[in-house]
Amino acid sequence: MADLEIIAIHDIGEVRPGDDLAELIVAADDAHLQDGDCLVITQKVVSKAEGRLVDIDPTDPLSHKPLVEAESVRILRRRGELIISQTEHGFVCANAGIDLSNVERGQAALLPVDSDRSARGIRDRLRARHGHDVAVIISDTFGRPWRRGVTDVAIGCAGIRAVADLRGTTDALGRELMVTEVAVVDEIAAAADLVMGKAKGVAVAIVRGLEAEWFGRGSVVDEIVRDPADDLFR
Amino acid sequence: MADLEIIAIHDIGEVRPGDDLAELIVAADDAHLQDGDCLVITQKVVSKAEGRLVDIDPTDPLSHKPLVEAESVRILRRRGELIISQTEHGFVCANAGIDLSNVERGQAALLPVDSDRSARGIRDRLRARHGHDVAVIISDTFGRPWRRGVTDVAIGCAGIRAVADLRGTTDALGRELMVTEVAVVDEIAAAADLVMGKAKGVAVAIVRGLEAEWFGRGSVVDEIVRDPADDLFR
Repeated sequence: MADLEIIAIHDIGEVRPGDDLAELIVAADDAHLQDGDCLVITQKVVSKAEGRLVDIDPTDPLSHKPLVEAESVRILRRRGELIISQTEHGFVCANAGIDLSNVERGQAALLPVDSDRSARGIRDRLRARHGHDVAVIISDTFGRPWRRGVTDVAIGCAGIRAVADLRGTTDALGRELMVTEVAVVDEIAAAADLVMGKAKGVAVAIVRGLEAEWFGRGSVVDEIVRDPADDLFR
Repeated sequence: MADLEIIAIHDIGEVRPGDDLAELIVAADDAHLQDGDCLVITQKVVSKAEGRLVDIDPTDPLSHKPLVEAESVRILRRRGELIISQTEHGFVCANAGIDLSNVERGQAALLPVDSDRSARGIRDRLRARHGHDVAVIISDTFGRPWRRGVTDVAIGCAGIRAVADLRGTTDALGRELMVTEVAVVDEIAAAADLVMGKAKGVAVAIVRGLEAEWFGRGSVVDEIVRDPADDLFR
């Protein structure tokens, strides 16, 4: 019996501005959403549903670059075409979270304006209309300094604490733990990506079996974004 | 039916220098290891089995600090008691990967000398003695710049590619993917941590259901550690 299960939701179909993701997920869900599940939804479909699409010149591979500058409040590094910047939300990532994959040619998708709010909206609709009490995480693909390869992280959440605080708890040998704050929503987003892939077109997954004490009010922006004053690399 | 399953292996017991982790895992494994599984093993028990333990003064909370300096080849940042440094392996992390939780009082555990080799050793023994063809990842808990909370990442692997290269593949709409290198071993390590926890004393987990094409020869140090010359934040 698995302690944790991850289930891809297939066939939510191509998402268009104005679509109700909660309805699309319920309609496509052959995995039978259960109370206590955590839904992970990629930023791309959330941005599409929210109409965060901007027309760009399909013949110019750099036509989204002015958008990157506009969506950045601070540029940290610039090398060639790559810009590492801080977004309005406080996220530090490449190209302000704008990329062109899984978007129609001639369009770019911006990040949701408030990705925690996006997660809350989907969670609230699933509860109010369908009686499902599930947590929701919006995931996106970020690079990391010092380590090659990208991983998925959370950019918004609802119904789950972004960081599990283990302060005051003890390790298996009874010593008080020093490393105490685990970014569980980032670990869940990374786990879900293992069944989504970048090329498979799976935009939603269910993570089932998470610790009960992680559920509750949560926010990626409030809990995960590190205060620049407290940051050694900004 | 879950696409991915994660199963904690309980009761491998307290690991001591000289212990054979492959034997301990097989003895404790009530989940029946299957070919194509990926085992995730925390650094702490690997370091213990390999005798990477150093006596420190149990009455001095800073007595491990000289070890941190000795295990670092370069200090990136220093604030108060916290040192962010680069280890011999090329990992950039807090306190050179040395921490005191889940270690006997009066001891500190250093990182394995060669964590890819540690993973290969366990994989090879499981195959040679028990006929199990599984991948092995050694995980550790790292902080991140810009984002609060720690997540587990891979510091060694065997039998699995550290980075899945999607270059040349297309997205769901047929466009060539731009973000193409996914650090799958880091996503797997993060996923496994969801059933391990820092306080539960679960040091090994099975991840079952990974893509067949990810399996093969792999190395965290060769594939994940970014060349400092190529790094924007070093």
